[in-house]
Amino acid sequence: MDIAILGGTGDIGEGLALRWAQDTDHTITIGSRKDTKAKEKVKTYRSILAKHGVDARMAGVDNETAAMRGEVVVVGIPPEYATSTVESLAPVLSGDDVLVSPVVRMSRDDTGFHYDSFDEDSLAEEIAAATPSDVPVVGAFQNLAAGALRDLSVELAHDVVVTGDDQASKKTIRDLTEEIHGLRALDGGPLANSREIESITPLLINLAMNNPGMHDLGVRFE
Amino acid sequence: MDIAILGGTGDIGEGLALRWAQDTDHTITIGSRKDTKAKEKVKTYRSILAKHGVDARMAGVDNETAAMRGEVVVVGIPPEYATSTVESLAPVLSGDDVLVSPVVRMSRDDTGFHYDSFDEDSLAEEIAAATPSDVPVVGAFQNLAAGALRDLSVELAHDVVVTGDDQASKKTIRDLTEEIHGLRALDGGPLANSREIESITPLLINLAMNNPGMHDLGVRFE
Repeated sequence: MDIAILGGTGDIGEGLALRWAQDTDHTITIGSRKDTKAKEKVKTYRSILAKHGVDARMAGVDNETAAMRGEVVVVGIPPEYATSTVESLAPVLSGDDVLVSPVVRMSRDDTGFHYDSFDEDSLAEEIAAATPSDVPVVGAFQNLAAGALRDLSVELAHDVVVTGDDQASKKTIRDLTEEIHGLRALDGGPLANSREIESITPLLINLAMNNPGMHDLGVRFE
Repeated sequence: MDIAILGGTGDIGEGLALRWAQDTDHTITIGSRKDTKAKEKVKTYRSILAKHGVDARMAGVDNETAAMRGEVVVVGIPPEYATSTVESLAPVLSGDDVLVSPVVRMSRDDTGFHYDSFDEDSLAEEIAAATPSDVPVVGAFQNLAAGALRDLSVELAHDVVVTGDDQASKKTIRDLTEEIHGLRALDGGPLANSREIESITPLLINLAMNNPGMHDLGVRFE
């Protein structure tokens, strides 16, 4: 399968790219605003993977080219640019693609990190609204710690809650999730259920800040 | 320690009462709107506990008497009445008490269960605003499945995130949490961080609804 990671030079993009490259045979396309940056990062990812004995099928291009190539397109763009980037890429997205939203709007004050979409749509829903209506959007990967994901020496044991209104594309992303060793994919129901998942991300940071010895936290439901 | 559970005849109240009775030596006071209902429920709890070889120190009274007795007062009242009940009990609460909010506002639509305090304060903060300012309020136990909690044959293995602005009272509730076998208490920081915890509760129900074989879910952070 062709997986494109827009903003694939960022934290969560790096983690997903390295894990899919290590654990699967999918072709990974790293997108960035500038293709030179994407190509540079791919060099770094290749050398990390080589140390783990992996010869990765990976290329670096600009976000638009990545979106064109990907059957699965992960929006690893910083939350403040995610929706507008997706909007600008609408012409190259097709109904056979699946768009994945792993991003969360949050901010920090004196008390800790807070979820910023409490009084508006989840970012997953906002991205869906900016996407051509025939392109399914799935929420996933919001609660993975980038630090644990991109450190291939860390054994993962985390849940990924997947939301979406199209069952087939949700199944695609659940399968892709579980191809990463140590991740379990759970069905969170329709995309409208995404806020309750996105809002866990700031909590994970608050827990790491307030509990000595805890860091790079993920979540498990049992 | 004297623990009072207001609305202790409800689901979460029952679970906490049974677990504390089984796992600790604390005195448990079950409060209800009518003391006859509380007394009846205490009979039921005693007979459940007797089957597990526990002779419980437990009494049933009206909510006001319970609030007077408790050093720790758990607000196990249905969310729509929680704040007004606490308000009416203000005269009997003292600065030595700790008030605990385990409740969550949520509603259901076609897509699933949703957190209802997205565009307002968490219920923990709303209860704190309705409480005399010298009485510390702590958020805890929101993400425990009542079904698992009250079934003493279930071995718990769940996290409880505790929020609050007063360190000593937060420590009291963290200790009380960990006295229940299988529960781990985590510091969630100030009370202002409660929304991101309360909002997990509807997610737990959505996950149980959408994933065959999953039920009575709790959460673990690791």
